[in-house]
Amino acid sequence: EGDISAGKAGSAICATCHGANGIATMPIYPNLAGQNYEYLVSALTAYRDKQRHGQMAMIMQMQASNLSDEDIRNLSAFYSSLKPE
Amino acid sequence: EGDISAGKAGSAICATCHGANGIATMPIYPNLAGQNYEYLVSALTAYRDKQRHGQMAMIMQMQASNLSDEDIRNLSAFYSSLKPE
Repeated sequence: EGDISAGKAGSAICATCHGANGIATMPIYPNLAGQNYEYLVSALTAYRDKQRHGQMAMIMQMQASNLSDEDIRNLSAFYSSLKPE
Repeated sequence: EGDISAGKAGSAICATCHGANGIATMPIYPNLAGQNYEYLVSALTAYRDKQRHGQMAMIMQMQASNLSDEDIRNLSAFYSSLKPE
């Protein structure tokens, strides 16, 4: 699995929509706190690989476009480690 | 918003992967308990409209293909009403 602290360090921009604690700042965005690690890796990879389209996906395609596999593992480890509310 | 009890009644097949309580039965599937209603509506609609592709999306495209807008609102209301763990 990924490195939680490296994921936290790389999550500043994600926090704008998904919250610093993984609770989304707007209800159209998903909460990520406590989400499953493997699912987060698969979803982030799908955005990076432009397999998710449509209105909201465009934002995430851009955000994920420069992520390495390691970045994806670290961010996924960080968000899955947070306590859902 | 949707009808929670109608959503619960229609969620039997969803529970196979997402759990009767919205906690996924396998870590490659997302937990849905306590997820944001608007996000769930947008994600289910994206699967129904075949805007999400790739490995895992195929399963959800099939599941969502026959859902009406009302079904989507009800399922989203049900899962967002559940307590995340």
